[in-house]
Amino acid sequence: MSPTHDALSGEATQHLSHLQCSRQWRGFLQALAAEFTQALSNDELRELMFRVGERFASAHLLGPCATLSDLQQRMTDVWCNADWGSVTLVQQKEQLSIVHHCAPLLTGMDKSNVDWSLGFLQGAYQKWFDAAGAGSLRVAPGEPTDAWGSASFSLSR
Amino acid sequence: MSPTHDALSGEATQHLSHLQCSRQWRGFLQALAAEFTQALSNDELRELMFRVGERFASAHLLGPCATLSDLQQRMTDVWCNADWGSVTLVQQKEQLSIVHHCAPLLTGMDKSNVDWSLGFLQGAYQKWFDAAGAGSLRVAPGEPTDAWGSASFSLSR
Amino acid sequence: MSPTHDALSGEATQHLSHLQCSRQWRGFLQALAAEFTQALSNDELRELMFRVGERFASAHLLGPCATLSDLQQRMTDVWCNADWGSVTLVQQKEQLSIVHHCAPLLTGMDKSNVDWSLGFLQGAYQKWFDAAGAGSLRVAPGEPTDAWGSASFSLSR
Amino acid sequence: MSPTHDALSGEATQHLSHLQCSRQWRGFLQALAAEFTQALSNDELRELMFRVGERFASAHLLGPCATLSDLQQRMTDVWCNADWGSVTLVQQKEQLSIVHHCAPLLTGMDKSNVDWSLGFLQGAYQKWFDAAGAGSLRVAPGEPTDAWGSASFSLSR
Repeated sequence: MSPTHDALSGEATQHLSHLQCSRQWRGFLQALAAEFTQALSNDELRELMFRVGERFASAHLLGPCATLSDLQQRMTDVWCNADWGSVTLVQQKEQLSIVHHCAPLLTGMDKSNVDWSLGFLQGAYQKWFDAAGAGSLRVAPGEPTDAWGSASFSLSR
Repeated sequence: MSPTHDALSGEATQHLSHLQCSRQWRGFLQALAAEFTQALSNDELRELMFRVGERFASAHLLGPCATLSDLQQRMTDVWCNADWGSVTLVQQKEQLSIVHHCAPLLTGMDKSNVDWSLGFLQGAYQKWFDAAGAGSLRVAPGEPTDAWGSASFSLSR
Repeated sequence: MSPTHDALSGEATQHLSHLQCSRQWRGFLQALAAEFTQALSNDELRELMFRVGERFASAHLLGPCATLSDLQQRMTDVWCNADWGSVTLVQQKEQLSIVHHCAPLLTGMDKSNVDWSLGFLQGAYQKWFDAAGAGSLRVAPGEPTDAWGSASFSLSR
Repeated sequence: MSPTHDALSGEATQHLSHLQCSRQWRGFLQALAAEFTQALSNDELRELMFRVGERFASAHLLGPCATLSDLQQRMTDVWCNADWGSVTLVQQKEQLSIVHHCAPLLTGMDKSNVDWSLGFLQGAYQKWFDAAGAGSLRVAPGEPTDAWGSASFSLSR
């Protein structure tokens, strides 16, 4: 027999998905999101989360990074230390692709709240690229790429 | 030598305080609180947290409880299952005293945010007592009783 | 776009696998396993783990269960409360199939140690079925079924 | 009112003590310790734990450290990253004092098992000091200093 990681039973999927977002805050976050969505529009919530993400990045500055690979490592160190997954940065022709893997904020909430929750990651990456001197480049609103809290963004003019 | 639990070195205090609020959400919560306090007054934040607490309790209903002791046990089960500490309910002459021990929301935030954060517990207890048929009784705004996230509230007319 | 849970990137796989076994004990368990395998044979280790599993089950007795479904629920309650996954019990013609999903002991160790580590689950299930009055039925040594710590056992004469 | 960290209610003590050792491994470790103590003497268990500690340190080497303060920081980084507390190193006249704060292994077990469990920390510190070139210096068996998993050791000829 040769078990592979991608053969996921329904039970394993449910368990892993559950584990991703710490049991201490799952209930609180869901109640918070329910309150938020009643009071604010999706656009307002995305902007709110963007500002929270900027504050998070400001509180976790990366230090000087000489290369894209350095930057990816420092960002991943911050995320890993908080069990927030990791990031892959890929330079493409006209833009930089930012792929975040396994953000617990995205899996801890109902699917309908994933869209505006992405604002948190967008804001954090924007602040980190600003601090790295990326000047006028903007992180575009991202989109989810799997149900494990992964999402992709692009950085361009 | 007879080690006692209350002899706490500075390092132990720091470590235990840190452990109380899961490492996955500490940074997020602090960024969220910073954003909140810039946008809203303390009273508005306490009311917001009250509503979030009510939603949390509604999502974790306790089932029928015959006695105060039952109620205390069911509430504590909810809190324990989420590593949110425990509660003691004490019937006093004119009121019921509600003592919550070790709420991670209170220790995960800066001291200046503890006051409005208490609204979450106040809202949760209010909703649970409403559901238990406490009718017109109100949970009064609580106050912190130690630096480990404990707080006391009272339920009265 | 429609993200599905089974589309797992390499990074997501690594992160989820990592999350399964608590960061506090990963290093300790790996050092313990390395010491164990130098001192004892695989058979001795499986037997040691079997006895540890029996002790775990004795310390977490299930209470009276009227049906197989009750038994499955009570066992799963114990596992879930410890973030140890869940179990499915399926009555087959000549045996009962016991499928454990997502045991962190199996993912926290190197692959070469999975075989004897299964002894822990085997011992726990044996003790629980003994306590449930399964009399002379034996839990056979199990085998892993995926790389997320799942394994299947059978209970028969 | 001025809440202080040292005013600990019985409930807070119990909760914090519980939180120190991850819920995923508490039951497993207690079952393992029960099995160990039936099979081996205290001296054998301390030696076993010493070897496990050495293996742990070997798997978490510290890199070059120029000063005692560096060494303390690197060791603390390893412990912190695993939620295993921290360490303070104090040079005294004839020996170096090693004070470990809040080891979850010590709080996760019954009090009667604390003594031999200290072997793990002793082995880890011995291996780290060996690797740092401490040559013929030996870490003496330590003793617990509080009920939060703290313990003190000395390094001397």
